[in-house]
Amino acid sequence: MTHSGMPPAGARRHEPDVETIVGGILGGDRHLLSRAITLIESQKPEHQEKSHQILDRCMQHKRSSIRIGVTGSPGAGKSTFIEALGEVIIRDGLSLAVLAIDPSSRQSRGSILGDKARMEKLSGRKEAFIRPSASSGHLGGLSPKTHETIVLCEAAGYDVILVETVGVGQSEVEVETMVDFILLLMLPGSGDELQGIKRGIMEIADAIAITKTDGAQEGIASLSKTEFEAALRMLPAKYPFWHREVFLTSSLKGSGIEEVWRNITGFMDLMRGNGLLLEKRREQLRHLLYGLVEQMLKKEFFQNPDVSILQAGIENQVVSSQLSPFTGASILMDAFIRRR
Amino acid sequence: MTHSGMPPAGARRHEPDVETIVGGILGGDRHLLSRAITLIESQKPEHQEKSHQILDRCMQHKRSSIRIGVTGSPGAGKSTFIEALGEVIIRDGLSLAVLAIDPSSRQSRGSILGDKARMEKLSGRKEAFIRPSASSGHLGGLSPKTHETIVLCEAAGYDVILVETVGVGQSEVEVETMVDFILLLMLPGSGDELQGIKRGIMEIADAIAITKTDGAQEGIASLSKTEFEAALRMLPAKYPFWHREVFLTSSLKGSGIEEVWRNITGFMDLMRGNGLLLEKRREQLRHLLYGLVEQMLKKEFFQNPDVSILQAGIENQVVSSQLSPFTGASILMDAFIRRR
Repeated sequence: MTHSGMPPAGARRHEPDVETIVGGILGGDRHLLSRAITLIESQKPEHQEKSHQILDRCMQHKRSSIRIGVTGSPGAGKSTFIEALGEVIIRDGLSLAVLAIDPSSRQSRGSILGDKARMEKLSGRKEAFIRPSASSGHLGGLSPKTHETIVLCEAAGYDVILVETVGVGQSEVEVETMVDFILLLMLPGSGDELQGIKRGIMEIADAIAITKTDGAQEGIASLSKTEFEAALRMLPAKYPFWHREVFLTSSLKGSGIEEVWRNITGFMDLMRGNGLLLEKRREQLRHLLYGLVEQMLKKEFFQNPDVSILQAGIENQVVSSQLSPFTGASILMDAFIRRR
Repeated sequence: MTHSGMPPAGARRHEPDVETIVGGILGGDRHLLSRAITLIESQKPEHQEKSHQILDRCMQHKRSSIRIGVTGSPGAGKSTFIEALGEVIIRDGLSLAVLAIDPSSRQSRGSILGDKARMEKLSGRKEAFIRPSASSGHLGGLSPKTHETIVLCEAAGYDVILVETVGVGQSEVEVETMVDFILLLMLPGSGDELQGIKRGIMEIADAIAITKTDGAQEGIASLSKTEFEAALRMLPAKYPFWHREVFLTSSLKGSGIEEVWRNITGFMDLMRGNGLLLEKRREQLRHLLYGLVEQMLKKEFFQNPDVSILQAGIENQVVSSQLSPFTGASILMDAFIRRR
């Protein structure tokens, strides 16, 4: 439940000041945008002070973007799909930011930089900004920091924000509190691959794209399409006005990608029209507020020296039934509010 | 996020002391058991002090029970099913405690007492203890208090604990952290009824019982059985060694109930055999410890006078974008740690 003390990779001795960073972000300076994100991901109190000032300023200039969550099991071909989708988005005259998150491991930076390296074409485009987002060991994967990063990217004027998450249930539930549309990527084939789907993911998907439907896979793919459509019918509707579709795509042949993008923009038009987008954004801000409060509160608690000295010992005594959870929790709380 | 200040219905001027209550619980005194549960549900600090002492003592005497979560949409016939299942359990020479929870509403006491009234047969049996459990407005429905109530019932020697929850996703995810087996009750019929299933419930079910499969429903019921079996195949396996079955039951005819009970006991034998039950109980204790810490921490925070004065205003400014969530959260935190 504690936050990993991982030092921010890009933290420098002499950081540019808030004005410079904000000006740079609004002016589309990628380096200053990256620095600001690094500041946000930093655990140092002085960095948080500064990043909150930056975020406040950016909030005032934020433009509304299309926020898309792209999720799927490892190996579903997320990176190559995002590259192909990115090309379509850019062809539409829009810019995009890709935030890659790997909440399933503390090694996120490593593995994500791997993903990033695989998005060669896209990272070469001036219309695209690709950035790994550390989960800071936040319980449930996505941290409010991801939401904060979205705010910065919107201030920087990116029209589309793609949040890429590995398919681990909880993180998808959290990504839903930050994005407008959730796209689930699945490999062709039945049974086995489906084991990769974790709790809740299929329920919150607004569309499913079956990837790598080329070559030998084509036959299996159309079969999977039927299976997924059946599965979606078994699940509660997310919006009464939205029918969730299953698309056959191939990043290799570039087929189906265009259709997925049209599906997303069609959804956004509906959400703007019926006012649900505004409602959703308000709810997302509320969620962010309390997410931040909870994060600060837990941090305050578990970084409290009196608490951290006791924690491991208390936990061991509790799970081995030597100490009741009630006494254990009270001891930790007493240490926190310094009654002892 | 705050806790409802609902006063404990059964709180009296002159409570019996800890010794008396613990002695009563261990001796199977239902009235003292009920009083202890009321103490647990109380928000008064002095009651919490006392209830933790009681829980500590009970923890030392707790016996291992079979903990079953029974969930399903409103109208799925949970109460009548539990009555029928209770009869089977009692016929097996076992005693049971039924904890009915309605996390979906603050009116829980009311609606649950309604359920309780409907369990007439069972509440007449000396082998059964039926108790509504208030969710205390805990975020996500089930509160640690439910887990604490389970501890008391185990100390009282009940062999089987049934935790009844209304089918709202989050509460099922939480009930999984307290029980050994989750039974999902579903009405016969497809599509429409399935809309009642919320996120995650089907994934965490260890078995599904289709209820009210009598009279005109019999035809539809067997169809639903096939549908649910297909849906379960689409979902990730919860345990590699456990095949989740779908049962056709009728509380009216008493059919299928026996089979469900055999299924549950068979599952428990496997879990004891492979040591997973012990592992699960350790994990449940860890979850309870941090659940209690989080509960105490949030309570400490949102009941802080400086915080509660500001909260509503801050939230409104944040959702209407007049104030950034970052500043909003910081203002509340500063108020809490009294930096202002």
